[in-house]
Formats: sequence, C-alpha cells, structure tokens
Amino acid sequence: MKNAIRQSELFTKTRKEIPADEVSKNAELLIRGGFIHKEMAGVYSFLPLGLRVLKKIENIIREEMDAIGGTEMKTAVLQNKEIWEKSGRWSDEVVDTWFKTKLKSGGETGLSFTNEEAYSNILKQYVNSYKDLPVYPYDFKEIFRNETRSKSGIMRGREFYWKALYSFSRNEKEHNEFYEKIKTAYQNIFRRAGIGHLTYVTFASGGSFSKFSHEFQTLTSAGEDTIYLDENSGVAVNKEVYTDEVLADLKLEKDKLVEKRAVEVGNIFSLGAKFSVPFDLKYKDESGEEKPVIMGSYGIGLGRLMGTVVETLSDDSGIIWPESIAPFSVHLLSLGESGAVAKEADDVFKLLSEAGMETLYDDRPGISAGEKFADADLLGMPYRAVISERSMKEGGVELKKRTEEKGKIVSKEELLKALSGKD
Amino acid sequence: MKNAIRQSELFTKTRKEIPADEVSKNAELLIRGGFIHKEMAGVYSFLPLGLRVLKKIENIIREEMDAIGGTEMKTAVLQNKEIWEKSGRWSDEVVDTWFKTKLKSGGETGLSFTNEEAYSNILKQYVNSYKDLPVYPYDFKEIFRNETRSKSGIMRGREFYWKALYSFSRNEKEHNEFYEKIKTAYQNIFRRAGIGHLTYVTFASGGSFSKFSHEFQTLTSAGEDTIYLDENSGVAVNKEVYTDEVLADLKLEKDKLVEKRAVEVGNIFSLGAKFSVPFDLKYKDESGEEKPVIMGSYGIGLGRLMGTVVETLSDDSGIIWPESIAPFSVHLLSLGESGAVAKEADDVFKLLSEAGMETLYDDRPGISAGEKFADADLLGMPYRAVISERSMKEGGVELKKRTEEKGKIVSKEELLKALSGKD
Repeated sequence: MKNAIRQSELFTKTRKEIPADEVSKNAELLIRGGFIHKEMAGVYSFLPLGLRVLKKIENIIREEMDAIGGTEMKTAVLQNKEIWEKSGRWSDEVVDTWFKTKLKSGGETGLSFTNEEAYSNILKQYVNSYKDLPVYPYDFKEIFRNETRSKSGIMRGREFYWKALYSFSRNEKEHNEFYEKIKTAYQNIFRRAGIGHLTYVTFASGGSFSKFSHEFQTLTSAGEDTIYLDENSGVAVNKEVYTDEVLADLKLEKDKLVEKRAVEVGNIFSLGAKFSVPFDLKYKDESGEEKPVIMGSYGIGLGRLMGTVVETLSDDSGIIWPESIAPFSVHLLSLGESGAVAKEADDVFKLLSEAGMETLYDDRPGISAGEKFADADLLGMPYRAVISERSMKEGGVELKKRTEEKGKIVSKEELLKALSGKD
Repeated sequence: MKNAIRQSELFTKTRKEIPADEVSKNAELLIRGGFIHKEMAGVYSFLPLGLRVLKKIENIIREEMDAIGGTEMKTAVLQNKEIWEKSGRWSDEVVDTWFKTKLKSGGETGLSFTNEEAYSNILKQYVNSYKDLPVYPYDFKEIFRNETRSKSGIMRGREFYWKALYSFSRNEKEHNEFYEKIKTAYQNIFRRAGIGHLTYVTFASGGSFSKFSHEFQTLTSAGEDTIYLDENSGVAVNKEVYTDEVLADLKLEKDKLVEKRAVEVGNIFSLGAKFSVPFDLKYKDESGEEKPVIMGSYGIGLGRLMGTVVETLSDDSGIIWPESIAPFSVHLLSLGESGAVAKEADDVFKLLSEAGMETLYDDRPGISAGEKFADADLLGMPYRAVISERSMKEGGVELKKRTEEKGKIVSKEELLKALSGKD
C-alpha cells in the first residue's frame, strides 16, 4: 500500500445517503466515509480506506500472536464433510449456521464457520511425540455463518474476516500457561487498537473441559451481550453465568456489579481433549505412554473489532480513528483556489510523503472549505493539517487533532515533529 | 512472519507418503515438503512454509499493481444474486461452475467465481464524471469454481487465491495505454517469480469487444493448454485461435511455429462496455455528454503461479525456489551430535538472524546427515549452509546453492556476504 496518496486517486467519495436497510452506526459511518460497501445484509466489501484499517488491525494481531510463539498458516474455506463427521458437527441439527453447497463431482461441502476440525485434522498428520509439542498455529481467513439476523453492520456478519489460533499442548499445566499468555496478548491487542479502556476480561461459560471461558467484552450500547461489571476490580461476568454460585466462586458481590451492554471482541476457550479424541490426536510422552493433546481456541473477528472502534470512538461529526489503526496519520487539506496555496500544499504533501508520514491529501479543486472540513471529520484521521491563504499569512500550516476543537499554526518543521510524535 | 526460525518450531515435517488420489507433481512435492495440506480434491490449505511463498508472490504482485496506479480493496466472497442478474450471469445455464447456497433468511447466494459484477456495481456508486476516471482497483481473494475435474494440484483448484484488477477508463485510447502497461507489469511479475524465461505472451480469443485477449503461458508438460510458439520472436498463439486467418493477421508463419504444452499463469482481457452497459456505469465527459466506462480485467492465480514454479523449477530431489519467493533464503543445517557443532550452528543462526537473513535452521537432534540433506533438497531453499565437524576443521561453513552439485567452505564473513548478494 502506498504511504501517501492524493484523495483524487481514491475512487471512493464520502456520501450522504446510506442503504435504506442499514440501521447500525458503524456501517452508517463506514459507508458514508467510503470505507465499506454493503453487498447484502451481513456482507460487506472493504474499500481502499477500509482495507487499510483492516490490515493495520491484522498486523497488530499478527505481531502479538508471533510474539507468543504463533505460526501463521492459511486454511481453506471449503470444508470436507468427512472431517466434520468425526466431531459430529456436520449435521445442520447440531450446527444451525452452516452454509452448505453441492459438489458437481458428487457430495456436499460446507463453508468454514470455525476451524477446530480442520486444525485437528492437519495436526494429526504431524504430531506423534512430545517433541512435536506445544504448537500454536493460527490463520486469518473468511468465516461464514448463515445468520437470519444481520443488523449490526460489520460487527456481526454472515461473512467476516477472522483470526483463529489453536493451541496444542502436552498437558493442562502447559495449556494453562499459554492460556494466560494469550490472555495478555489479547489485552495488548485491544489496548493497541484503542479500546483497551473499554474492554473487560469477562467470565463466560466454559463447556465440559473447564469451568469458564473468557470473553473480551467492550462496553457499547451497540453490543448484543449483557455483562455484570465490578468497576473497581475490572472483573466482569457474562449474563449467561450470572448466578449466585458463580459470583461466590469469583468472590464478587452482587450489589457492587453494574449491568452493561457490551460486544464480545475476542474469546479464549479451553477445549481439553474434546477434539483430540475424535481426531485421534495424541502423542507419546517421554516414557512412551500415549496421551491426548490438550487444545484451546482463541478467536478475534477483525471486522467486529473495527466496527467496535467506530461505535465507541466516534462523535456526531464522524469517526475518530486511533493512530494505531487509522488509514492515514494525517489528512492534509488544501483550501481555496489560489495557485500559491495549491503549490504550498503540494510542497507539504511531498515533504510528508518523503518523511514516510501516512498522508491523505485532499487536493480536490472546486470543493468548499466547509465540505473538506466535514469530510475530514467524517473520515477521522488523527491529525488534520490545513494549508490556506490564512495559514500561509500566519506563517505555516494549521494543525489540529481530530479530538481537538481548535488547531494552531505550526511551521513545517513543527508539523513533521508533531506527526512523528517527537514534539 | 518471523525472519528466522528453528525447524523444531515448525509443526510440519517432510513426508514420504502422499494422498492416494494425488497425481500432480506440484502437489506431490508441496505435500511431501509440508507446504500444503490437501483437504479434498482441488482444495488445499497452505501450511506455514507454503504461506510464506504465497505471501512473497502476493507482495510482488502488489508492488507491480501499485506501481501502475492500482488501488487495493477486498471484496466479499458471498455474492448478491440481484447484482449478477444484471449481467445475466446468475443462471447455472450460463455459468456452470457456480457454487450456490441458500440463505436462512430466504433466497440464495453464490460464492464469487470472478469479480466483474461486484466491481462494476461498486464503481457505479462512485463514478459520475470524467474526473473520476481512470481507476484501477484490485484485490486478492479466494475464488471458487465448482470443477468436476481437479487433478492438477494447486494449479487448478475448486478454491484458489486470486488477484484480479479491473480497469475503468474513459475511452479506448486510455484503456489501450493501460493495457500495455499492465502487460509489462505481468511480464515483470513472472520474471520476478522466476519463470520469465518460460513464459510467453500468447494471443487468445478476445470476445466481442476486441479481437484478441492475451494470456501469459508458461511452458510445462503439466499445463492444460496447447500453444503454437514462434521461438524466434517469442510470439505465441493459443490453439483456440490457431487459424490461418489469425496467423496471417499476426504475420506468423505456420512452419516456424512449434506446438507446446503450457499453463496460463495470467490473462488480460479488454471488456469494452460489456459490463458498464448493464450496470449503467457511465460518466459525463468534459462537454457534459454521457459515455459508457471502458473496462478491462486482469487476473493471476497465486496458487497456480506457485504450482507452476514447482512444476518447472524442480529436480529429482525436490523443489528449487527462486530467491524472490523462497520461504527462506538459506537452510542452515547442524550435523552430528557434537556439542561444539551445535554451539557453532547456534552462533551462525544468531549471526544470520541478526543480519536479517531469512533462515530456516535445522537444529533437530538425532536426525542423520543424509536425512537432513534430503530434506534440504526437497524443501528447496536457494542456499544450504552446513555446520559439521568437517566444516569446522576446515575453518567455517559449507555453503552450497540448491542448483550446485558441490559446496565450498567459507568463513562466517564470507557467508554473510554471499547471502546478502554482496560477494
């Protein structure tokens, strides 16, 4: 991706109107800004600006997964029926969100809605000995769920872009150590993506192999979940396990908990031997004894995370991207039709590009200052730098953070310093 | 992705056996090397080593597309029936490779098998004026085709990873200029991926809007196409347009042409107004007159390209990756069980890692020299660096290119120089 582009090179434009059936705030702002395009309910394409955000989120997640020993791969979308029959999850009666389709050569295939089966089956080919473990493969891929309801924009799609990591450990102890590591990695991810202050590790139901799983719940009225939060300790409990017994277990006092709406931006789950048994995924330990591999699963929906950022970090004028995932760091605006202004703006664009600053340059002629300001607010880059006759008279560039009311005039040197975080 | 890893960190291993129904050489070598995993006929997952190759190919393509004005986006897999009905390509009678599936909310959706409709529909939202053109959006995505026959490994999949760019131009002249630019970009891509010397621009049938399209055909017995090649001029003609009339048109002499098997690794196609008319994709020119947008389509299958490299650049011992797309530049082997060798190999690994060399380090204990050599040949990194008691006695590291019979002893300084291309 280019570091710095002119807005005239983008084929997208900001829009006033959105599809009539769109009710979510995240999709509304992202469609108006030209970040995404709605193909149908729950299915969105990512336009150039939206893809930049998605890739930055992807890179943050990749760095955090690699840092704890993750190994990236890329599993197929089309799923083999025989593999899913091993775990008993092929049937529509067991899993009600399958998309299935017929193969011309005979038989059926399904679109991946999760990855436990594919991973267990692949690892079965390679794991024999304790020396082969632990391993932490993961991938980024499209996931498909045949949802009847899709009104949450990119926060709940029928098709969504997902990171899933699976851990394959020798025993519970090794599993638990990794589980704590990835819990921290997830907290890093949400903090780096700008929603750490709104996101709580939340106890949720655990299935047969552990009492609890953990969700990462971000407070927002757009969420579909209800959690009970102890604001002092930062501990939260999902409504699904909000019982007196669980509260006693977690040493939480009911009257100190507040009910909140939240969205699950990530979840981590201990699977025990649930999948290793049907896939015969076992290893020989140091003494030659065969033991089942202990698994865990760890998912993050990248579109959901992006949608959550928009829901929680926007104002009446538009989106407010955190610097870490903004499509560009700075939105450079050239105002007015004067040749001197256009030339100065071109010079500043060149300066920023050459300094490696991620810059979106609104060089469009014939667009009023008001429209350019409104577009900059809607698109939500962290910094806005304006070149106008006034700014030139005052000796420089008007620089303003998206979150500030008023800008200030800075020299070009000061501009570079401010944008590189060195002021 | 990490720059340098120990082979013990990879969960994959080389294998002797391959799936019984696998007949293609590319899939055989890639499965034996642990680059890919066969999910079912025509559907493969990319394991860590395979993903590294795929990402390098992706980056080469991205650089070449961006250099000619391409703008990356990411369109959805699930396709809206209404959109495809506009072009008349929804019906199974028109397109016989659709994968379709039912929506729980009612109605049907299909899995993308190409992108003309989705792109035309998106661009319709944004293109009004001559000022909005030309634009060259593209994406990398999974493409699905319900093929009855899938025996070519990753060279023809039911699911495959694809780059498609579409050009939207104001007129034929602007279109033709871009068409020539992307022709050159494609030649750059195949040259950079290591198969330029085997790849020929080939005249193929053009459809209603231009006499010819152009395919990029790479000579290989594994190809499904037949071309007629003038080895002097490098001009080739696909069998489908191999007529006396076409030969006369192209000033080719029949008796100078040789028949060759080849695989189409890329194709570029002029679409004229074929899609812009049904999608009402038009613009107002400088005088206010409405005109249809002139389109072109340009595809490359990344898995097919990777498979073609394996088919054409391997020997009896395994794969020979070009440096540009090799998973790692160098395969470092530690031989024997001596502590001094292991320590020296660790030191060299550290040296290479810190110098930013992409290194796969075979640090596995208890594996014979013969097995390690065989694995290194199968996996096919451009360079092999061996640390053994012999190499240490002779004062260094035994360095050998994958294409060379014999290595030579070099010092660590010479090793670094050779690998960084500075010797």
